[in-house]
Amino acid sequence: MDKQPVDPYRLLRKYFSDRMPISDEDLNYFCSKYRLKRTKRNQVLLNAGEVNPYMYFVNTGCLRVYMLDQSGREATRFLVTENRFGTAFPSFILQEPSMAYIQSLEPSELLYINFTDFRELTDNFPEWQRVYLRNIEMDYIASIKRIESLITMSAKDRYNLLLENDPGMIQKLPSKIIADYLGISQETLSRLKSKK
Amino acid sequence: MDKQPVDPYRLLRKYFSDRMPISDEDLNYFCSKYRLKRTKRNQVLLNAGEVNPYMYFVNTGCLRVYMLDQSGREATRFLVTENRFGTAFPSFILQEPSMAYIQSLEPSELLYINFTDFRELTDNFPEWQRVYLRNIEMDYIASIKRIESLITMSAKDRYNLLLENDPGMIQKLPSKIIADYLGISQETLSRLKSKK
Repeated sequence: MDKQPVDPYRLLRKYFSDRMPISDEDLNYFCSKYRLKRTKRNQVLLNAGEVNPYMYFVNTGCLRVYMLDQSGREATRFLVTENRFGTAFPSFILQEPSMAYIQSLEPSELLYINFTDFRELTDNFPEWQRVYLRNIEMDYIASIKRIESLITMSAKDRYNLLLENDPGMIQKLPSKIIADYLGISQETLSRLKSKK
Repeated sequence: MDKQPVDPYRLLRKYFSDRMPISDEDLNYFCSKYRLKRTKRNQVLLNAGEVNPYMYFVNTGCLRVYMLDQSGREATRFLVTENRFGTAFPSFILQEPSMAYIQSLEPSELLYINFTDFRELTDNFPEWQRVYLRNIEMDYIASIKRIESLITMSAKDRYNLLLENDPGMIQKLPSKIIADYLGISQETLSRLKSKK
């Protein structure tokens, strides 16, 4: 028997219908605004200096949003894992050149939507506006907590917090990326890992 | 002739009616959820470890949200100036103990609303939900840009950015607070100021 092909909109439909009451008609309309893209390992989706046209939903794989610091070293801002939305947010919302790069860390399957369509959906569907608002509140809180943890916590505390909140990330991603994300050296990271 | 007393809800009413269509009835309902508080210079409104019950709207004066770093030094997270909303956001939204303190830097006149009433208004008035969403998007972007500027910019560039975006802040506030906010020493700040 032939294997049924997997619908690339399966996860996205579930994402919406799990979080709000939505008719099949509206669900189809929402999905019609998203296009499919498959990427290779380390493929760059956005360069700094470009205006970021898309919000991404990650079906499979992982996106990394990063910048270059004053000495040209890559500094990871955050990672977008499966079944989540993410993008270089300031450039997307303000439609101005990005400070950040977007890269797919592994071969990934993505759904993406442009800014005009994104705004049309959030402005015209109050239920979705509420879900999106809750997401942005949580993203804003995560960014505040990241600043707080960088100011108030030791490298060891930051590592333990990540281990607690997202253990999969530590297993899945190269230690260079994790060290970078925690703002510590790879040597410090391997010392912390061996102590567990 | 007697001087007419100033309505403490004047600015708040204008804030809402400038940003969305709203009936007088709804405007009165919104304002009925806010209470008035007058504070002294350096009065602490929230201590770290407490659950933050209120969102503040600043009529006059200025609020500072700050934390203690690993060595017990105060690190300013941000400032809430006149005609703006602000609070220790993670603790308010998650209703969990705060990492941050809130203090009024000068004698201030504040309007405040509790979490339940705040959620009731955002959930039941789609126009206000949209205004609040835009505010949170901008606050989130400001926090991302702050992380970006700390990672990618020199002290001089950060100072110039603040001078460009909020020149009043530099004139109005003590240089200790400004230096703290920029993540630089007071000596570096006075060197930067004298070069302008």
